[in-house]
Amino acid sequence: MYSVNVRDHFMIAHSFQGETFGPAQALHGATYVTDATFFRDRLDADNVVVDIARATDVLHRILGRYNLTNLDTLPAFEGVNTTTEHLARHIADTLAGAIHDGELGETARTLDRIRITLHESHIASAAYERPLQP
Amino acid sequence: MYSVNVRDHFMIAHSFQGETFGPAQALHGATYVTDATFFRDRLDADNVVVDIARATDVLHRILGRYNLTNLDTLPAFEGVNTTTEHLARHIADTLAGAIHDGELGETARTLDRIRITLHESHIASAAYERPLQP
Amino acid sequence: MYSVNVRDHFMIAHSFQGETFGPAQALHGATYVTDATFFRDRLDADNVVVDIARATDVLHRILGRYNLTNLDTLPAFEGVNTTTEHLARHIADTLAGAIHDGELGETARTLDRIRITLHESHIASAAYERPLQP
Amino acid sequence: MYSVNVRDHFMIAHSFQGETFGPAQALHGATYVTDATFFRDRLDADNVVVDIARATDVLHRILGRYNLTNLDTLPAFEGVNTTTEHLARHIADTLAGAIHDGELGETARTLDRIRITLHESHIASAAYERPLQP
Amino acid sequence: MYSVNVRDHFMIAHSFQGETFGPAQALHGATYVTDATFFRDRLDADNVVVDIARATDVLHRILGRYNLTNLDTLPAFEGVNTTTEHLARHIADTLAGAIHDGELGETARTLDRIRITLHESHIASAAYERPLQP
Amino acid sequence: MYSVNVRDHFMIAHSFQGETFGPAQALHGATYVTDATFFRDRLDADNVVVDIARATDVLHRILGRYNLTNLDTLPAFEGVNTTTEHLARHIADTLAGAIHDGELGETARTLDRIRITLHESHIASAAYERPLQP
Repeated sequence: MYSVNVRDHFMIAHSFQGETFGPAQALHGATYVTDATFFRDRLDADNVVVDIARATDVLHRILGRYNLTNLDTLPAFEGVNTTTEHLARHIADTLAGAIHDGELGETARTLDRIRITLHESHIASAAYERPLQP
Repeated sequence: MYSVNVRDHFMIAHSFQGETFGPAQALHGATYVTDATFFRDRLDADNVVVDIARATDVLHRILGRYNLTNLDTLPAFEGVNTTTEHLARHIADTLAGAIHDGELGETARTLDRIRITLHESHIASAAYERPLQP
Repeated sequence: MYSVNVRDHFMIAHSFQGETFGPAQALHGATYVTDATFFRDRLDADNVVVDIARATDVLHRILGRYNLTNLDTLPAFEGVNTTTEHLARHIADTLAGAIHDGELGETARTLDRIRITLHESHIASAAYERPLQP
Repeated sequence: MYSVNVRDHFMIAHSFQGETFGPAQALHGATYVTDATFFRDRLDADNVVVDIARATDVLHRILGRYNLTNLDTLPAFEGVNTTTEHLARHIADTLAGAIHDGELGETARTLDRIRITLHESHIASAAYERPLQP
Repeated sequence: MYSVNVRDHFMIAHSFQGETFGPAQALHGATYVTDATFFRDRLDADNVVVDIARATDVLHRILGRYNLTNLDTLPAFEGVNTTTEHLARHIADTLAGAIHDGELGETARTLDRIRITLHESHIASAAYERPLQP
Repeated sequence: MYSVNVRDHFMIAHSFQGETFGPAQALHGATYVTDATFFRDRLDADNVVVDIARATDVLHRILGRYNLTNLDTLPAFEGVNTTTEHLARHIADTLAGAIHDGELGETARTLDRIRITLHESHIASAAYERPLQP
């Protein structure tokens, strides 16, 4: 199994609902250093998993929807706790949609899996990994 | 599949038995920067894999049993080579026990897998990954 | 010259005033991975620059004043752009005060300099370094 | 499942064929920080996945075939785009051969899988993971 | 003293002249992960050392002159050993020129010092630090 | 000012004397990831601060005196608390001696300064910087 990983980041404000979150119920924020990993069994005709430049661009565009915002005010997250885990899945699902829409090129449609890892500090991260094929 | 990772460290002395270990048969030591990774298929009602604060506390408590000790003198490791691999498993099994005992909360009992990674330097690490369910 | 460095982090929301800041004028947030570095010419009687455990505790307490808050609402930052540079200085000055007040012990009063470095992502950081003696 | 990881690096020149690669069609180069990861279900009699010193030596010897060369002139890569993905597989297959030849010792023959990860910068990497058993 | 650091990278081929360089006399290459650090005593009216977005852009443009090239063929390096040290200075001097030309804005002209650090692997780097004022 | 940095590591056991050290009075250990930094104003005839390969070898040889030992039993540290700060200075002074003895070559004798940084974990390090000239 081959994989390729590209890294970018976004910076947001948010707050959590529920006593479990203790002081994190207050409005605060985070930098999420974001790894997008693409998996496939065979390389394409150019000997790549995915065009790294395009993958970097698509990831940057997706993270740009959240970068420098307050997640509490985005319709996509209304009534949702935007935990690192939830954000990792949300971004992975958005990236999967972009791949199905051809934004990473034709051959990217045959990718096997993707994983999004969000590093919220030097000591904590969360990830979500999902298949791309139905 | 979702995952969450938290990081801590512990510092120990130990020595190895057996010619394979060459100069590492002498008493020496290591800092183990430790990653605990928790895996599950679905998030709980709070939208998390595990309560990160609790996971951090439990990991810190477990590593505290070894931190600032000479492993050669601990009953748990009598007659055992405390290689990085062995320590990774020992800590993973201890963490699994703590989860079964409810130290990470009720919902943590349905975690799928855990992995312990011990970084012994900038160029070497070992890990052990195991299921939590019987 | 000797130095000792300890690392911690805090997570905040804030926004900036002024067209220079472009989209960062909107409410957003950051994780600041924080390095506190202590400098001195001679070690104390225990052969240390500073008691690392105490330094870690004091840094954690200082960062705790900002962790999980919206900086825009804190009196200390009223009418101020809480840029990474400004925060680095604010924390360095606060730490200098704590040292003068003896929170790091008697011998820490003779420290020469301190530096606070705030890493806001994997590609950007800011720092402030200042003397401790008048 | 246990694993052990060792890290080394190599520095090469190369160029790519095909319009997909844009400006990377020109002769350029890269440092590949290389992680070799070894997986197995059970530890051997010495309580290790693999002898770390031997694994480090074998990896260094394999990377030494490419280090400080122009990959475009090596017979092994004639007519091939030496993408990071392709190199990861090439090195993984070479390492698998070395293991089958006994260079990592008898017990290493029962390793389950290996993975080679090549970090080409602080924001991009590629990996290839393969089984060792037929 | 305040400082701000931004990071980028470039990937090049080159070779060295002189027996000191041993096997590095052959054509090979490197990824240089590049830190540009800007120093000043006082913040400007916006409470910054330098506009981070502009600094990132200017650094990217400067590194773009070398990225994906063979340094041996660039007139700027004719007859010169493009060691990491030499490249660090070359880039620092180029950046200083850009600052004097106003590419980082008016207030950047009063910066005190800059430093360029080039990381050629996980175990080696070189840097050059210079004043900006005459 | 130019600088070059090379990295290696060593793994030791030790204990501390004095109540300040609390539980670290017990025999324990550490991995010290070690950076050796060499500073000079002008490059030598080969356009380098120091021959990186030689610097790496000399550092490795020096660290080899301590690697895989119990520092409490070494004559060099009799009656001394081998704090990270003290070790940084001890290694820096040893390296300075090696440079004066010509182990890094003739031109290395005109180096300006050196610094040794010991990273004892992902959150703590100590350093010692000293001039080389009398």
